[in-house]
Amino acid sequence: MIRTLIWHEHRHEKTNKLVARLYPKGMDGALADAFAGDKDFSVSTARLDDDAEHGLSQKRLDDTDVLLWWGHMAHGEVKDEIVERVAKRVFEGMGLIVLHSGHFSKIFKRLMGTPCALKWREAGENERVWILNRNHPIATGLPEQILIEHEEMYGEPFSIPEPQETVMISWFEGGEVFRSGVTYTRGAGKVFYFRPGHEAYPTYHNPQVLQVIRNATRWAYNPAPAWKGINEAPNVPHDKAPVPLQVKGPRLHEDGQEGFR
Amino acid sequence: MIRTLIWHEHRHEKTNKLVARLYPKGMDGALADAFAGDKDFSVSTARLDDDAEHGLSQKRLDDTDVLLWWGHMAHGEVKDEIVERVAKRVFEGMGLIVLHSGHFSKIFKRLMGTPCALKWREAGENERVWILNRNHPIATGLPEQILIEHEEMYGEPFSIPEPQETVMISWFEGGEVFRSGVTYTRGAGKVFYFRPGHEAYPTYHNPQVLQVIRNATRWAYNPAPAWKGINEAPNVPHDKAPVPLQVKGPRLHEDGQEGFR
Amino acid sequence: MIRTLIWHEHRHEKTNKLVARLYPKGMDGALADAFAGDKDFSVSTARLDDDAEHGLSQKRLDDTDVLLWWGHMAHGEVKDEIVERVAKRVFEGMGLIVLHSGHFSKIFKRLMGTPCALKWREAGENERVWILNRNHPIATGLPEQILIEHEEMYGEPFSIPEPQETVMISWFEGGEVFRSGVTYTRGAGKVFYFRPGHEAYPTYHNPQVLQVIRNATRWAYNPAPAWKGINEAPNVPHDKAPVPLQVKGPRLHEDGQEGFR
Amino acid sequence: MIRTLIWHEHRHEKTNKLVARLYPKGMDGALADAFAGDKDFSVSTARLDDDAEHGLSQKRLDDTDVLLWWGHMAHGEVKDEIVERVAKRVFEGMGLIVLHSGHFSKIFKRLMGTPCALKWREAGENERVWILNRNHPIATGLPEQILIEHEEMYGEPFSIPEPQETVMISWFEGGEVFRSGVTYTRGAGKVFYFRPGHEAYPTYHNPQVLQVIRNATRWAYNPAPAWKGINEAPNVPHDKAPVPLQVKGPRLHEDGQEGFR
Repeated sequence: MIRTLIWHEHRHEKTNKLVARLYPKGMDGALADAFAGDKDFSVSTARLDDDAEHGLSQKRLDDTDVLLWWGHMAHGEVKDEIVERVAKRVFEGMGLIVLHSGHFSKIFKRLMGTPCALKWREAGENERVWILNRNHPIATGLPEQILIEHEEMYGEPFSIPEPQETVMISWFEGGEVFRSGVTYTRGAGKVFYFRPGHEAYPTYHNPQVLQVIRNATRWAYNPAPAWKGINEAPNVPHDKAPVPLQVKGPRLHEDGQEGFR
Repeated sequence: MIRTLIWHEHRHEKTNKLVARLYPKGMDGALADAFAGDKDFSVSTARLDDDAEHGLSQKRLDDTDVLLWWGHMAHGEVKDEIVERVAKRVFEGMGLIVLHSGHFSKIFKRLMGTPCALKWREAGENERVWILNRNHPIATGLPEQILIEHEEMYGEPFSIPEPQETVMISWFEGGEVFRSGVTYTRGAGKVFYFRPGHEAYPTYHNPQVLQVIRNATRWAYNPAPAWKGINEAPNVPHDKAPVPLQVKGPRLHEDGQEGFR
Repeated sequence: MIRTLIWHEHRHEKTNKLVARLYPKGMDGALADAFAGDKDFSVSTARLDDDAEHGLSQKRLDDTDVLLWWGHMAHGEVKDEIVERVAKRVFEGMGLIVLHSGHFSKIFKRLMGTPCALKWREAGENERVWILNRNHPIATGLPEQILIEHEEMYGEPFSIPEPQETVMISWFEGGEVFRSGVTYTRGAGKVFYFRPGHEAYPTYHNPQVLQVIRNATRWAYNPAPAWKGINEAPNVPHDKAPVPLQVKGPRLHEDGQEGFR
Repeated sequence: MIRTLIWHEHRHEKTNKLVARLYPKGMDGALADAFAGDKDFSVSTARLDDDAEHGLSQKRLDDTDVLLWWGHMAHGEVKDEIVERVAKRVFEGMGLIVLHSGHFSKIFKRLMGTPCALKWREAGENERVWILNRNHPIATGLPEQILIEHEEMYGEPFSIPEPQETVMISWFEGGEVFRSGVTYTRGAGKVFYFRPGHEAYPTYHNPQVLQVIRNATRWAYNPAPAWKGINEAPNVPHDKAPVPLQVKGPRLHEDGQEGFR
């Protein structure tokens, strides 16, 4: 059972009739439908305005195996301490799926270490998401390309680190290309960025798009226990070294002292 | 001419007689000697306490091709806005060499996106830095291993992203191993982390260690003009698309509007 | 059920009493014990001298999900056509675990594209296999290091391509280091090289070593259907293009013609 | 001075009037023009039918810093021993630029270890080669995209290993995408694959295409001395170990004995 938490900004639905009509249950509701009836997942949702912690208490995150993230107009309202909390859970082993405009979310930029910028255009053009390795777990059950009738364009250069795997590349009608499905490992956590999902289009009602998201959630799941100490820099005293040593030469630190950070 | 700036915390030298004796010109002075007499480089230094910007004004950074970074006990005193300024210059194409305890510097963690934690021990033990690809530019003129008589141990797991290249791996007398020379690209900037250089030992007087640092500086140099706009997310209007388009479907954004961040 | 096939050269056991005594069932027999009682696997073995195809008929390979490979003194006797057959199955999605002296097997060199050379010494020294990401599936259930009392040394430089992930690095008593656990993807197939396993030592009776091998087999398993056409270069006629085209400019090829190879 | 050797199959020019008219000096002649007047390069050419060694004697290769490779209809005629000779020079540090239909050359498949297959269509359609990192040395002096009026389409999936860097991705008018500029390291040698260059079009008269090729040649140049022993697996005797050892446990090999291959 993969404990899946869908985090959604949920602001466009409140202010824009188009989005509200496309996603009457919120975009998070549409995303949750991706997992409906699949007993491998237990799914819940959280929203920016749920509470002072954006629905992401430490307990909630500790009980999450894979987190999905959709944000756009309110990236700046996500509190830095919550971003750090999420990042730490990723390092411990929680999977993270970042969707569409989440490329500019604080958490994605935090984990990538780069601007994560791109070109964009909202013209309702065709997007063709090509799959590079059809046997990749994230591509299970999909054809060689996913055709999306109307989508926002995202174009290269996409200022991300070189991906561990480039799983998907998109073609846009207006002439651009984009690395639309890319994987990373951050600490013990697996990260997948997936491009499609502009709020003005019914992309998250597309069964192939939802299948990518379900596949990616399964792929990102790490059953290992949380790597709690991954942030720590433990001292290994000379007499506890794998090959015990006598101290040689000068020293600055006392035995058992904490390192500087 | 590679405009090289050596940034140094310069605190241990002030408070510890051992360090002061080992590095009478400061560790930055010893590092500067790595480039002495080599006309390919123009070298200057900056220190944490130089001024309110830690010697890293925008102008100074704009005039820097490659930045070296050594910090330890005062990582926390480096201002966040200066860290962002340095990160942006790396994205634009400035090279960055992070040394030893700089693994926990704000700038390195900022660019890696991970904890960058490790094990450590100060026992003056032997370190053997093995070179994996002797024809790598960073290995020019070096033997297959660099033996350092006394060094601090850093041990795996080192919680960094998978490197673009693992150039060096260290063996420690006490039984640990460590990825001691690793490369990354961040935006247009090349980043090299190099392990040796504990302040309690004369490591930065070792000619082979200095050669690695000089090689790495040359490797990290990118003669291309600064990529100024790498943080921006430009809109490409439908009628300026590489293949001009008619807008189809609904829209949220007006022409020429800024994207959300 | 992961259909696991252990391929073993099985020559040392016939000519060397030491090896015969250490591995009375053959090294393949010891490796098979790694999976004993685990219902997720169905395990069989094949040997170089089994038949004219080294026990690796097309049918046998088609029915294999993950292949383990141990060879040493008879690499040169493995027929090139069988090597190609195995390589093709890897491209289609079969997992491959290459063990110890298999670094110089034809199949490993075929898939890496590099010399795969290294340093070595047979002195029965201590090996410490350090695990870099303890939450990696291949590290499940293991401590931070595996201590092997007596092993052959393999030392860097190991002339392999930069790994997709460096999961393990070994420390040797005599002063060398080695990337002992490295992953690759080749076509749709996952490949893991694992260093320990010199025939003169009881390494494949070490429960931790066997656990790595079992973990790696699970990790390498790809449930997707075989990607049969991955060697083919299909023509997409202009009128069957995703965006149908008129032919423009000159042409060399007729419609439907095969490409040159 | 980068000693550059352009290897060309030179068969289409002999049998096809169109190609002969487009490339009166041969495609190799057009490629050589890329370097005309640039004193950093000394350029020569070799052709499949030059002599029994395809113009690639050991001496010629030893005197080459970077080799360019264009082949198509006669891949199968290149002798295996010459392919191995070229591969060994790459491992030693020679750069290699593989062009267009060279994706199916023996040397490229040898170095990649994968099928290197792709989709294709000859319809004279528009290709847009997008540059992902404009400060990459291979992108020097280029705009954000190279528009080629008429080109053959190559489409994903391109069955190559995950690149070290994906520098360029192409968009095709007919709806496909392709990783058009990808880098690898093989031993000490740098490898770049560059897609454009179908023999039926004047692609190698396009100044931007030629600039990519010139840039890539400069990038692939490694001034380090040839790594002659990279294919060897030297024994390090116990008493010559970095940390001298007594032999413990049993042994199979005698001192100084060659390893099995």
